[in-house]
Amino acid sequence: MSQMWRVKVVGLGVVALSLSLELLGWLFGRVRHRRPLNKVLFFPSKVACLEHLFSPKTARSCFCPLPHGVETSFSRLLRHLLSASSSLDLCVFSFSNMDLSRAVLLLHQKGVTIRVLGDKDYSAITGSQIGVLRKAGICVRCDSGSVHMHHKFAVVDGRLLITGSLNWTLQAVQSNRENILITDEAELVQPFIEEFHRLWALNDPARLYKQL
Amino acid sequence: MSQMWRVKVVGLGVVALSLSLELLGWLFGRVRHRRPLNKVLFFPSKVACLEHLFSPKTARSCFCPLPHGVETSFSRLLRHLLSASSSLDLCVFSFSNMDLSRAVLLLHQKGVTIRVLGDKDYSAITGSQIGVLRKAGICVRCDSGSVHMHHKFAVVDGRLLITGSLNWTLQAVQSNRENILITDEAELVQPFIEEFHRLWALNDPARLYKQL
Repeated sequence: MSQMWRVKVVGLGVVALSLSLELLGWLFGRVRHRRPLNKVLFFPSKVACLEHLFSPKTARSCFCPLPHGVETSFSRLLRHLLSASSSLDLCVFSFSNMDLSRAVLLLHQKGVTIRVLGDKDYSAITGSQIGVLRKAGICVRCDSGSVHMHHKFAVVDGRLLITGSLNWTLQAVQSNRENILITDEAELVQPFIEEFHRLWALNDPARLYKQL
Repeated sequence: MSQMWRVKVVGLGVVALSLSLELLGWLFGRVRHRRPLNKVLFFPSKVACLEHLFSPKTARSCFCPLPHGVETSFSRLLRHLLSASSSLDLCVFSFSNMDLSRAVLLLHQKGVTIRVLGDKDYSAITGSQIGVLRKAGICVRCDSGSVHMHHKFAVVDGRLLITGSLNWTLQAVQSNRENILITDEAELVQPFIEEFHRLWALNDPARLYKQL
């Protein structure tokens, strides 16, 4: 092989290596900088039929008078909640909304591990769904260490945070101005996971009875 | 110049070009993927002296009985709020906390453009700071188109979102379990900016009087 050919081959090799590194860097960057999910929902939500979210197979035969096939803030919230496949940690001040209760019960039936932390006063008011969830066999604890356990957040599958101003009531969904923020940004989700664990342990009945 | 030299020069040129592109791509990636600010604060907050935040020059001469030089959730919240240099848009259900009111008044004195949107019922209750802000010359509007304007968010300088479960009251800060999320992630901030503009225009007194 002549000297010139050797130089040509080495040159081409360098170019090929450099391009491969560029491609690898790009692919690595894509994986590393995967765009996080960041969504915001505002309320009050339009009222629409939600049957298709609970029973997709029979939804076509729903003849209720509400508008069908309409995507609303509330249907989006339910969709994210119902996406849970392994766990749902719920920390909510006031929980009386029947559709949200139905969603949590449906997830429980599907085998999703659910933990609900409520406020001690608001869990006992008329219409609260906390008792319904407890009777269905869902793990429920009530916070007793503060004036109000005023959080309204959920962590889905340990990766998706749903939080905001919205209590889980009908008035909040249909009548108030409210916001819900949905994110899988780890820097935001992780502190909520840790806070849930802390509050869950803090309100363990075994621990509380020991103190008496 | 011999054929071999030409090949060498072209080869080196290709390598130099490729390395430059790699460097440019890295620099562009650094700018594009600037790490957003994402913080979460939990309450109740420890009680500590906040004088250094309001008047840094005279803080050393504060002899109040509260602990000094302690960073708390509330001091962090105030610090982010007081970082406003051009505008503060505030949308809050219940606003009776004197320290938060002092922070807003201080920003107003410094020339920061402030707009406050409150709830029509909670703006009128005893202890509400909405009247104090209005008397100081701050633009205040009250929402009249919903059962409750239940938001609790602020947008600082059109770039930083402060939102969560925490009402701007003393009980929320010192006694309740609450959360505050602070982010400059555009996907999260922008919808809140748009919602504020929408609600601000919707509750323009000129528009409301025209409807009467």
